[in-house]
Order: sequence, then C-alpha cells, then structure tokens
Amino acid sequence: MSLDPAIAARLKRNEAGLVAAVAQERATGDVLMMAWMDDEALARTLATRKATYYSRSRQQYWVKGETSGHTQYVHEVRLDCDGDTVLLIVDQEGAACHTGTHTCWDGDVLLAEPA
Amino acid sequence: MSLDPAIAARLKRNEAGLVAAVAQERATGDVLMMAWMDDEALARTLATRKATYYSRSRQQYWVKGETSGHTQYVHEVRLDCDGDTVLLIVDQEGAACHTGTHTCWDGDVLLAEPA
Repeated sequence: MSLDPAIAARLKRNEAGLVAAVAQERATGDVLMMAWMDDEALARTLATRKATYYSRSRQQYWVKGETSGHTQYVHEVRLDCDGDTVLLIVDQEGAACHTGTHTCWDGDVLLAEPA
Repeated sequence: MSLDPAIAARLKRNEAGLVAAVAQERATGDVLMMAWMDDEALARTLATRKATYYSRSRQQYWVKGETSGHTQYVHEVRLDCDGDTVLLIVDQEGAACHTGTHTCWDGDVLLAEPA
C-alpha cells in the first residue's frame, strides 16, 4: 500500500525512516501509548482505520490488537508542526498496554502531583 | 544535576541517549507536543517542575517557555512500560507550539473523523 505522496512529502522521518505515533483515547483523553510508523504503516492506518505500527525490535508491521483483541479504531490522525509525530485519536478495545493496564503510563510515577 | 540512579536504571534510551517526552495539558487533556530528554533534562524537570527538553537540532537544553514565556509547570511525570517515553502532565502557559497554536497538532489533519 502506498502513502499519498502529498502526505509523504510532509513527513520528517528519523534515521530509521520512522515517525513517532502517539495514541490518545477519544472518550477519555487518556494518552494510551507511543509507538512508531513507517510510510507503509501510516498508509495502512489511514486506509483501514485500524492502528498499525512498525515494530522496531521485531522489524515487522503490527496491527494493534490483532492477536490480543485490544484493537484501536482510528477516528482521526494529525501530523505535528515539524512532521515527525502523528497523533491518533482512537477507540481502544480493552487494555492499550501489553502489560494489561489501560495505558502504558499506569505503572511508574517519577514525579507525583505536588502536595 | 544528576538523575536519581534508581530512575536512570529504568530508562531505555535511544541510540542518541534520549527518551521521548509527551506533554499533556492537565486541565483539558490535550496532547500538546512531543520532544526529547536526556538524563540531565529529565533530572532538571523533576527538580524544578519546569519542563526542560533536549534539542537534537541545537544540541542544547531548552527550558520550555524560557524565551517565549510559554512555560510548562509540571504536575506529574510518568515513565511508560518499556522505559523509553515519559508523559508529562503540565499547566501550559500560552501556546505550546512554536507556531503559535495551542498544540503541535492543530494544523494538519491526515485523516478526519468518519462522516
């Protein structure tokens, strides 16, 4: 699947050819996870509305929830001002995090709300 | 300023020694921007509650709003499940984006809400 050339021209990919992707839950505003996309993953996400990332460690495409059932239906995709990060507004089915928590930031607070 | 070794041990830095940092507005839940931190930037952020990033292009620390006045007061910092991205919950003064918009994703919609 090829990415719309008008979109491809606006991307500022990193040295590995990837842009960052932040997923935010539509209903709650919760920031769910951060992952990566290459042009193909972004094209598939735009075409299918199923969030599709590129796994750097496994070097393969990864349709979120394909094995876990914890899919992300994509309502909107926005590109940031410098073209290196997309924001996905999604409906999250089940847990977004592979650890089973709602978001990937539920476990480790480095700095708490001031008293 | 040195980062708490117990925190430093949990970070999974990229090849440039950085972790990603996503800033979310406390009052609205809006995702404001994505930037980068090294250990020093994170240590300064935790110590001062002023969001401090590392500029890859300028290779220097950058206290958000130091010149623009568009500061970020940091309420919480959380580390994600795989240690490579922090989430900052902030009070944003003025525009978060250097283009003058509220967030860095206000300008370029790649995929709109389905009709």
